[in-house]
Amino acid sequence: MRTSIATVSLSGSLTEKLTAASRAGFDGVEIFENDLLASALAPGEIRSRCADLGLSIDLYQPMRDVEAVPEDEFARNLRRAPHKFELMQELGADTVLVCSSVSPLALDDDDLAASQLARLASLAQDFGIRVAYEALAWGRHVSTYDHAWRIVEAAGHPALGTCLDSFHILSRGSDPKGIEDIPGEKIFFLQLADAPLLAMDVLQWSRHYRCFPGQGGFDVAGLVRHVLRTGYDGPLSLEVFNDVFRQAEAGPTAVDAHRSLLVLQEAVGVGELPASVVPTGVAFAELVTPDAEPVSALLGALGFARTARHRSKPVDLWEQGEARILVNTGPAALPHSRLRSSGGTPINGTGLAAIGLESPDPRAAARRAEALLAPVLPRRRAPQDAPLDAVAAPDGTELFFCASGRDPELADWRADFAAVPHEPGSAGARIDHLALTQPWHQYDAATLFHRSVLGLHPQESVDVADPYGLLRSRAVTNGDGNVRIVLGVGAAPADDTLHAQHIALAVPDVVAAARAFRAAGGGLLPIPANYHDDLAARYELADDELDTYRDLGILYDRDAGGVFRHCYTRTVGRVFFELVERDPGYRGYGAQNAPVRLAAQHAGR
Amino acid sequence: MRTSIATVSLSGSLTEKLTAASRAGFDGVEIFENDLLASALAPGEIRSRCADLGLSIDLYQPMRDVEAVPEDEFARNLRRAPHKFELMQELGADTVLVCSSVSPLALDDDDLAASQLARLASLAQDFGIRVAYEALAWGRHVSTYDHAWRIVEAAGHPALGTCLDSFHILSRGSDPKGIEDIPGEKIFFLQLADAPLLAMDVLQWSRHYRCFPGQGGFDVAGLVRHVLRTGYDGPLSLEVFNDVFRQAEAGPTAVDAHRSLLVLQEAVGVGELPASVVPTGVAFAELVTPDAEPVSALLGALGFARTARHRSKPVDLWEQGEARILVNTGPAALPHSRLRSSGGTPINGTGLAAIGLESPDPRAAARRAEALLAPVLPRRRAPQDAPLDAVAAPDGTELFFCASGRDPELADWRADFAAVPHEPGSAGARIDHLALTQPWHQYDAATLFHRSVLGLHPQESVDVADPYGLLRSRAVTNGDGNVRIVLGVGAAPADDTLHAQHIALAVPDVVAAARAFRAAGGGLLPIPANYHDDLAARYELADDELDTYRDLGILYDRDAGGVFRHCYTRTVGRVFFELVERDPGYRGYGAQNAPVRLAAQHAGR
Repeated sequence: MRTSIATVSLSGSLTEKLTAASRAGFDGVEIFENDLLASALAPGEIRSRCADLGLSIDLYQPMRDVEAVPEDEFARNLRRAPHKFELMQELGADTVLVCSSVSPLALDDDDLAASQLARLASLAQDFGIRVAYEALAWGRHVSTYDHAWRIVEAAGHPALGTCLDSFHILSRGSDPKGIEDIPGEKIFFLQLADAPLLAMDVLQWSRHYRCFPGQGGFDVAGLVRHVLRTGYDGPLSLEVFNDVFRQAEAGPTAVDAHRSLLVLQEAVGVGELPASVVPTGVAFAELVTPDAEPVSALLGALGFARTARHRSKPVDLWEQGEARILVNTGPAALPHSRLRSSGGTPINGTGLAAIGLESPDPRAAARRAEALLAPVLPRRRAPQDAPLDAVAAPDGTELFFCASGRDPELADWRADFAAVPHEPGSAGARIDHLALTQPWHQYDAATLFHRSVLGLHPQESVDVADPYGLLRSRAVTNGDGNVRIVLGVGAAPADDTLHAQHIALAVPDVVAAARAFRAAGGGLLPIPANYHDDLAARYELADDELDTYRDLGILYDRDAGGVFRHCYTRTVGRVFFELVERDPGYRGYGAQNAPVRLAAQHAGR
Repeated sequence: MRTSIATVSLSGSLTEKLTAASRAGFDGVEIFENDLLASALAPGEIRSRCADLGLSIDLYQPMRDVEAVPEDEFARNLRRAPHKFELMQELGADTVLVCSSVSPLALDDDDLAASQLARLASLAQDFGIRVAYEALAWGRHVSTYDHAWRIVEAAGHPALGTCLDSFHILSRGSDPKGIEDIPGEKIFFLQLADAPLLAMDVLQWSRHYRCFPGQGGFDVAGLVRHVLRTGYDGPLSLEVFNDVFRQAEAGPTAVDAHRSLLVLQEAVGVGELPASVVPTGVAFAELVTPDAEPVSALLGALGFARTARHRSKPVDLWEQGEARILVNTGPAALPHSRLRSSGGTPINGTGLAAIGLESPDPRAAARRAEALLAPVLPRRRAPQDAPLDAVAAPDGTELFFCASGRDPELADWRADFAAVPHEPGSAGARIDHLALTQPWHQYDAATLFHRSVLGLHPQESVDVADPYGLLRSRAVTNGDGNVRIVLGVGAAPADDTLHAQHIALAVPDVVAAARAFRAAGGGLLPIPANYHDDLAARYELADDELDTYRDLGILYDRDAGGVFRHCYTRTVGRVFFELVERDPGYRGYGAQNAPVRLAAQHAGR
């Protein structure tokens, strides 16, 4: 189906919005009147610009407070309308959105509404324009889609149809099944938006908190299925008012938006996307650093052994059990590092730059990612390298799809490495989870990316009190928990470089691992005694157990499924490690201990 | 009365919070448990620190899910309680907050709740501790203050009382009059918070949107009056969970907080503040600039004449009718410029640094400001200067209280200036309003400051769509509109230096003024033709009138009281001028045209 986006959904000047929509692959746009008024481009120039960008202008919006008003008021409305219809002719837009009236002058009189809308439609028809009438959820007398449709039906004018908007329908809890009673050719337009399920005033909810389909709590796909059954063949168009998107760069927002429509189309069975290929494990995590020494010392103390060296690049492989870390001391300015400056976080000093994900079918995984607008990275970074499939996540992290040694037909990243003599590392460790700080404006985008591109399951977003603001984080995991990524954002847009990334290592015995780390010269994050005093009050722990936790800075959490014990290393650059011992049934990440950890990290700076 | 603040209301480490509370003049604090847990200070050290800072520890909070649970669960709670009571002894805190249970285990059984609370109180009493039981608005079975009080009354234990919290009471719409039925000595604590009137889930509202009394929509003063009638003599204590305050520097937040309690005490008749002295006009606005040339050219083109020169400093006075602008090319690092680095906006290049306000009693105005924690500026900047009363606003703007030539007994700022030969400036102009960008985290603080310190009336906050995010602004005015200040904030915390300040000049004829400005070489902000095309659709304006507006970039607005016509100059540094022609009945500031103006300003960069 054709895809469209309202200009109000994107940040910037009209030109920036149109460019971003085009680059992200949209077929058309809705022009929001205020964006036109504020633009220095004349309507004809906007039309040309859109044509150059391959965009149709699918809707001009909105006209307000038109219908069901006293005749003198309506006469004024009719006198004003030709101004807009002429403008639309210059734009080359053939459909105008009329929102149900919120005016105190509006009368609760469906016959009057119908007859006035028919008169407006007659006038519009003279200009070759169609009128799409939409029920605002807070319309004065008309606030439901079925009511708006009854008025359109009563008007019986060929140039008058209805516009459906998923936010207005689902925010009121209306049953969208009734949409199927509307003939498809009378649905002149379909606007889509999702929203988090907030108990709040619907106008404020609509104006500030809408999001793209799949990022909120509405069943937008279910609604679209009803619409498709009517035979509707217009565009799927996004109209999202969101305070965050207003501030964010238009380019990444438009990509996120278009991705949401691709996923939606897949969900309703009209899109053609390569099937999802869910990763089964973490092959490696790659750190880039200008100075290998501090990272090497940290890895050594953690029990990693340096097992191999890249054949052509300054990259070392460190291993411990099933955990593999690459340490890259090459130039941090990788070929695709422009991604980082476009919404992503530039890597200064030591950072987590790439993740290798074990994939049942790396090529297929990359094809799906590409179809879902993930930038594809060059398969070979150097001529002699194994041809790996890799894409960039929204935060700039490189994701490599790996088939480590499973199939001789498939490239193996390890073939690029030559073994070096080494002592064996500690056994039993694996990567429990990776925590990545996201660009602040792209928290929901990051979730949608990991869900749709990688097929990971998002868990609930949690607020975490840092001493200097509320952070948010959300885990995305595969089915068996062998891939867990925690996506976090700081308290404010400027904070994304302030907060560290981390690698959590699952170990069989966190006490033993922490002791060994310290014995090897590693620095553990000290945890205040007050925390452990409180543990003593909350849980019935043996005194010597508590003393051990105190000594090592081990934190403790428990849920219905089991116990979670964890501790932290000091930070190197932007990266630190966590050692975790997780009961199989425990589902979380020790979020309730995070404020204490964060305060301790601030105190140590 | 004694004033206190919960540590959760402030940002930073516990040490930073305590320091900020003390410096702002609080008498005590509530220690929020998580702040203690995350602190490296032992309880005894916290006690000493508070003593050194002159702070008592008035409350330790909270204990949760204690009461009305099955006996085995309650037995566990009782086993845990001594840990906390011992901790409180070390802290020197004698009152603990117990919140009504939200546990799914809690039973709807007031007798059980009363008996268990009495048992807890008996245990507490052994440690010399009192238990203050509070109804959370979202408590499972106990969610209103009168219900909590009935349980406390039924328990009949001397160490058990109630804690009242204005948020929990007013957010549920409870009538606070019933508070008077509670004996004052059984009100063990009073927590105060205001909140904007939002229709939203009460838990989210409470956790993220509380604000200080006078910054929201609740009648906190009314509630406090009921409490005082009971004979309550404990502290007035602020407990505010607010996402913005969590991020903001603790120092300015604590000052804002304490100011709110001073104003509240005045409102309920228990404080002693010098009476409010409302300014009657704008004596001058002062621009600082490293280069007088661009500003002088702009002022000259606007019809200002350079009429006088400061006797000892590089400051020129420019006049036009009743509008007076000082242009200061001296060092921008004024004695109090440290204020700007503490939450205020540093002035880079050309900025609006000071405002002279005509005051019926400058000394009294300064005394009130000082009593309300405004930093007082040196009366004489140089030995020979007139001794003026001046304070700093939260954004660092200097406010001078002036009595320009009204009373020979009072210092006159104009005495510092010597006339220079000049052509007369244009007649008829005066300063309509001054628009000042506020530090993002201090929007509500700025409003409270201008209301309480200056006695100005805040109008509604309005959202304005900038192409790159939603801005907010709120006007504060005196009764007759001769003093109007518009306080604005950017879309995100980092934006405060991006947005310009401006001086709006009221002129008798904006068309004539704009033409004269252009004829004198001034640059008007061009407004897109699309805007004026839309004006033609919305209003029945004569064609030649519209052509004039188009030509000059004049914007047009109309409300029930009249018409507002305005246009803008190009920006110099951070400052631009607006020319406005305001019908006497028009109340606004052309906010609906602001998106077009902002887009035009972005386009011109």
